Amino acid sequence: MRKLKVGIIGAGRIGKVHAESILYHVPEAEVKAISDISMDYVQNVADSLGIPNAYDDYKKILEDPEIDAVLICSSTDTHSPISIEAANAGKHIFCEKPIDYNLERIYKTLDVVEKSGVKYQVGFNRRFDHNYARVNEVIKEGKIGTPQIIKITSRDPKPAPIEYLKGSGGMFFDLAIHDFDMARFQAGSEVKEVYAVGDCLVDPEIGKIGDIDTAVTTLKFENGTIAVIDNSRQAVYGYDQRIEVFGSKGSVEIKNDTATTTIIRNEDSIQSEKPLYFFLERYMGSFVEEIKQFIKAIVNDTEVPVVGFDGLQPVKIAMAATLSVKEKRPVKISEIK
Amino acid sequence: MRKLKVGIIGAGRIGKVHAESILYHVPEAEVKAISDISMDYVQNVADSLGIPNAYDDYKKILEDPEIDAVLICSSTDTHSPISIEAANAGKHIFCEKPIDYNLERIYKTLDVVEKSGVKYQVGFNRRFDHNYARVNEVIKEGKIGTPQIIKITSRDPKPAPIEYLKGSGGMFFDLAIHDFDMARFQAGSEVKEVYAVGDCLVDPEIGKIGDIDTAVTTLKFENGTIAVIDNSRQAVYGYDQRIEVFGSKGSVEIKNDTATTTIIRNEDSIQSEKPLYFFLERYMGSFVEEIKQFIKAIVNDTEVPVVGFDGLQPVKIAMAATLSVKEKRPVKISEIK
Amino acid sequence: MRKLKVGIIGAGRIGKVHAESILYHVPEAEVKAISDISMDYVQNVADSLGIPNAYDDYKKILEDPEIDAVLICSSTDTHSPISIEAANAGKHIFCEKPIDYNLERIYKTLDVVEKSGVKYQVGFNRRFDHNYARVNEVIKEGKIGTPQIIKITSRDPKPAPIEYLKGSGGMFFDLAIHDFDMARFQAGSEVKEVYAVGDCLVDPEIGKIGDIDTAVTTLKFENGTIAVIDNSRQAVYGYDQRIEVFGSKGSVEIKNDTATTTIIRNEDSIQSEKPLYFFLERYMGSFVEEIKQFIKAIVNDTEVPVVGFDGLQPVKIAMAATLSVKEKRPVKISEIK
Amino acid sequence: MRKLKVGIIGAGRIGKVHAESILYHVPEAEVKAISDISMDYVQNVADSLGIPNAYDDYKKILEDPEIDAVLICSSTDTHSPISIEAANAGKHIFCEKPIDYNLERIYKTLDVVEKSGVKYQVGFNRRFDHNYARVNEVIKEGKIGTPQIIKITSRDPKPAPIEYLKGSGGMFFDLAIHDFDMARFQAGSEVKEVYAVGDCLVDPEIGKIGDIDTAVTTLKFENGTIAVIDNSRQAVYGYDQRIEVFGSKGSVEIKNDTATTTIIRNEDSIQSEKPLYFFLERYMGSFVEEIKQFIKAIVNDTEVPVVGFDGLQPVKIAMAATLSVKEKRPVKISEIK
Repeated sequence: MRKLKVGIIGAGRIGKVHAESILYHVPEAEVKAISDISMDYVQNVADSLGIPNAYDDYKKILEDPEIDAVLICSSTDTHSPISIEAANAGKHIFCEKPIDYNLERIYKTLDVVEKSGVKYQVGFNRRFDHNYARVNEVIKEGKIGTPQIIKITSRDPKPAPIEYLKGSGGMFFDLAIHDFDMARFQAGSEVKEVYAVGDCLVDPEIGKIGDIDTAVTTLKFENGTIAVIDNSRQAVYGYDQRIEVFGSKGSVEIKNDTATTTIIRNEDSIQSEKPLYFFLERYMGSFVEEIKQFIKAIVNDTEVPVVGFDGLQPVKIAMAATLSVKEKRPVKISEIK
Repeated sequence: MRKLKVGIIGAGRIGKVHAESILYHVPEAEVKAISDISMDYVQNVADSLGIPNAYDDYKKILEDPEIDAVLICSSTDTHSPISIEAANAGKHIFCEKPIDYNLERIYKTLDVVEKSGVKYQVGFNRRFDHNYARVNEVIKEGKIGTPQIIKITSRDPKPAPIEYLKGSGGMFFDLAIHDFDMARFQAGSEVKEVYAVGDCLVDPEIGKIGDIDTAVTTLKFENGTIAVIDNSRQAVYGYDQRIEVFGSKGSVEIKNDTATTTIIRNEDSIQSEKPLYFFLERYMGSFVEEIKQFIKAIVNDTEVPVVGFDGLQPVKIAMAATLSVKEKRPVKISEIK
Repeated sequence: MRKLKVGIIGAGRIGKVHAESILYHVPEAEVKAISDISMDYVQNVADSLGIPNAYDDYKKILEDPEIDAVLICSSTDTHSPISIEAANAGKHIFCEKPIDYNLERIYKTLDVVEKSGVKYQVGFNRRFDHNYARVNEVIKEGKIGTPQIIKITSRDPKPAPIEYLKGSGGMFFDLAIHDFDMARFQAGSEVKEVYAVGDCLVDPEIGKIGDIDTAVTTLKFENGTIAVIDNSRQAVYGYDQRIEVFGSKGSVEIKNDTATTTIIRNEDSIQSEKPLYFFLERYMGSFVEEIKQFIKAIVNDTEVPVVGFDGLQPVKIAMAATLSVKEKRPVKISEIK
Repeated sequence: MRKLKVGIIGAGRIGKVHAESILYHVPEAEVKAISDISMDYVQNVADSLGIPNAYDDYKKILEDPEIDAVLICSSTDTHSPISIEAANAGKHIFCEKPIDYNLERIYKTLDVVEKSGVKYQVGFNRRFDHNYARVNEVIKEGKIGTPQIIKITSRDPKPAPIEYLKGSGGMFFDLAIHDFDMARFQAGSEVKEVYAVGDCLVDPEIGKIGDIDTAVTTLKFENGTIAVIDNSRQAVYGYDQRIEVFGSKGSVEIKNDTATTTIIRNEDSIQSEKPLYFFLERYMGSFVEEIKQFIKAIVNDTEVPVVGFDGLQPVKIAMAATLSVKEKRPVKISEIK
């Protein structure tokens, strides 16, 4: 059987992760080409991963008629324009999140994609994580009845550098956006209203650039479910990633993953391990799985598991949360246009 | 040494619990008299507990010059008037929560109490629970640094009968008021703003009487701490009572208490025990401890651990939460007068 | 209803514990008298507990025709002679473990007791502990099928003083005897062979008096169940008391009880609480329950839950284990006569 | 840099696992050839894994001068003869456990290997498991002081087919041998005496072929540590793989790994996940790691982490345990010759 040919646009950390996923875990596909701005850098990446073609211009990937699908892993500001070009070139698209920070551009991108008929998957990888995916199965199996309250804890081990944060779009776009997607995923419904409380409690430097580092966001869903998300830029004990979904017949929750199950008992206390360090450690399995399912959807011509609309909604929620903190009031999603 | 003489006003469930606490666990005090509306009933209670005097009129307790302190365990609407009478009679007072649902009456009660010079403790027993008290110690020991986010889960195993709920003042006054006190206790600060989302997701009958059964409440404290409380009238797996306090140097949380530590492994799953059934089972130790400390404060003439102001504030928060759900907006505590 | 009158022989730690159990938790009984060697001491104990009669001669208790039952809490060497005297006086007997270290004397005691027709309960309190009792229920409910392997962990927080250990009969009689009873209790069968490995790994002083401080004992039961018990005189993290029973349909195990369910997360690790400190903290509930059930058996004239034979068998197992360590071979219980 | 060339002898389940480990996780090596008895079968395996050469005669691997190392994954009876041939051919050797069931042949193999100077690693993979390896680190870091008691639980989810068991050498050789290695690994000492109790409690068919399915084995180590291992052919709740090492300053233990950290609460109980199904799921990481370290030892010319002597000792312990059950007595390792 012919292998699906994939081109990767952007050879940074996540681009390389996806390349390795295909190399080691997706026998139905192969990476034919990879591009990045620096030719030296991308050639090096291509060599070390055994990718036959390296380009400093992503257009060469789009022009290659043999390539079936592209993974857009370049900087956020290029996601929507390259998505449009790739769709016009007839390539199936896996696009890292977020599609854009500008709603007009997202609408246009989704419009072009839809008309082109290519598949378009957005990189909300956590849906594919073994723990979060199992929570979703438990809900769908009816084991907890109708979800009523969703509680998401999502805390980073430490803040990114200020320079990075300046261009990040703010905590709701950079950190909480995954949680907004997760809440939608588990609620099985759309958010209608957002109320967010945010403050700068971790590092005053973050406050100086107009951002926050601590937030609690309440989401009201159309089906009645209430979700509450607490975010922090700094949990000194590590990357804290948990969810609890409480329903009419019970609840399901997950604990953090740890490197080992070791428990040490000594004179001081009983000690267990801290969570896995950060997102690469914690979510590696989900990065593999999202690419597997993207390729599978192309091969079988079925719908991709995270569609363009799933890329749009969390951006709207992040906008609503940002506005809510600013104006100290609940904000309806219908206000965000 | 002369034992402190205590009179108990109201011989219902909680009145009997306090009587037994003194009988079995507080050697410095003895219950001299107990009153209730029905003479037959209260005589029976007195006999079974070995209390020498039973009355169908609480005024006889207040008139007994030998009685040093009274426990007001009668119906909520009598808390403030009896508090005032008892203070005027020079009795130290332990008053079940809430003092009242009317702010004017609370202000007046606290005013009379203060002028009288008697001690006045409000029955927020959970502060004395082994788990919640330990959380407070951990915070005070500086082990988690400055508290930033407080998460309280407080869910009943099943709704009280509709007839009871009708007179309960609503979910925020009847159920969440303990959580509002707990949030203040752990935050070590005062609430300045409340935002609550509430809905009727458990039983439509509760909605018909204008009440809610599911709520998520966000509290902003003056010191920057953000608290979020989720309440439900029905957790089918039992009484779910947990807290997590997240701070600059770590976090502290508690799990539910269980009757045993048994774990069963079988073909289906690994099973551990459900939480202790309801508040009498879960909080029995705290009922004993609050009375111990009340008696101790009288004997040593020190301040009681939960003062009148602690009885006032949660009522204000409950009012703000109720208004917030009604008007769909955050409500400042300063609006509640 | 007439209350059962109880006399307590021996006013040491455990005698006082039992007195308080009756005082606070057993309404069907009252302590009429207590005796100990020192009149001053026992009078003091009686006064503080409100026991009407204090004697320096236990015979006065036996001679009191109003007294229905005695609790023998005096030193181990007096257990069997006083048991015999009490049986001859027609008193129901609760006797602390062990009945004796000498098999001949145990046989004689049990013989006299049987002929007298009084009830005779031996103080193996752990059977009444909430956790161990629940394990037994789980087994009896058939939830784990037929027990195949029983694993008992029983470790003290620190060794008793050498002077105490010298007269203790050795680790198997002093510490492990509770575990031998527990293994029988859960296996529902009799031990037929014992193999024990023991060593002095904690404190060389213990070795100098000919005792051991670390042991692993294997018990073969008549019904095929294999039990293994590990004992240590010193677990630096506290009193470690656990069991796992593995069967054909699953397993049941218990964790240690802790004072609170607090979990602290910080930069170093995730910390939970150490076990409850020692046997008084850990097993207080079981001391109450064993007396409750003893009194109940008298009142209802049913069989006591731990009979004389249950006092005999663990002594035989301890003898076999001691011999096994000495002769480095498995020892049959039938060898112990 | 030139990649190390590896030949794999035996293309069954474990041979394929090792091939994939090298393919995906060991960039310093490549699999040049694989052999098995059936040419069709092995050609198929080679094609699917991209291995350039497939043979139905392992001698072709040994004759290839370019091949540096071989992995012996063929049937147990061939381990020692092929080890000798490979050593004589100057190939470094990774040999699956056990080397042999016959001591004479093991001695001869180890003798030839030693004289040849090639590296020889035995496939006790569990030492490389993240949990067991961490336990070893904790011990070596001195966190629990001197190990005194080691408890190993090792239970299969269900018995292998009777036909397999007939040729397995018995439960101690087939199942417990990993645990004997583990006990040595964690104790850091050699076993001097073995006492084993074994019975057929799971399936009478196993008894009919003269084997047992349930065992408790006590090991006395030269350094005073006592280990106890409990084995069962059938834990209905899944593959139960745990260890606890108790020492002078504390203890360290591991829990079973699970597929997710999901906890479900419902009306019945609180449910967590069963252990990972069986050894391929549970120990996959360790299979990768042992090969990584084997290759690394060759590349860096350092000692392999599990040497020939480590292959010999567990066989002796298994022989002693078998004899102990048969003769119902403790057996000294020095008796096994």
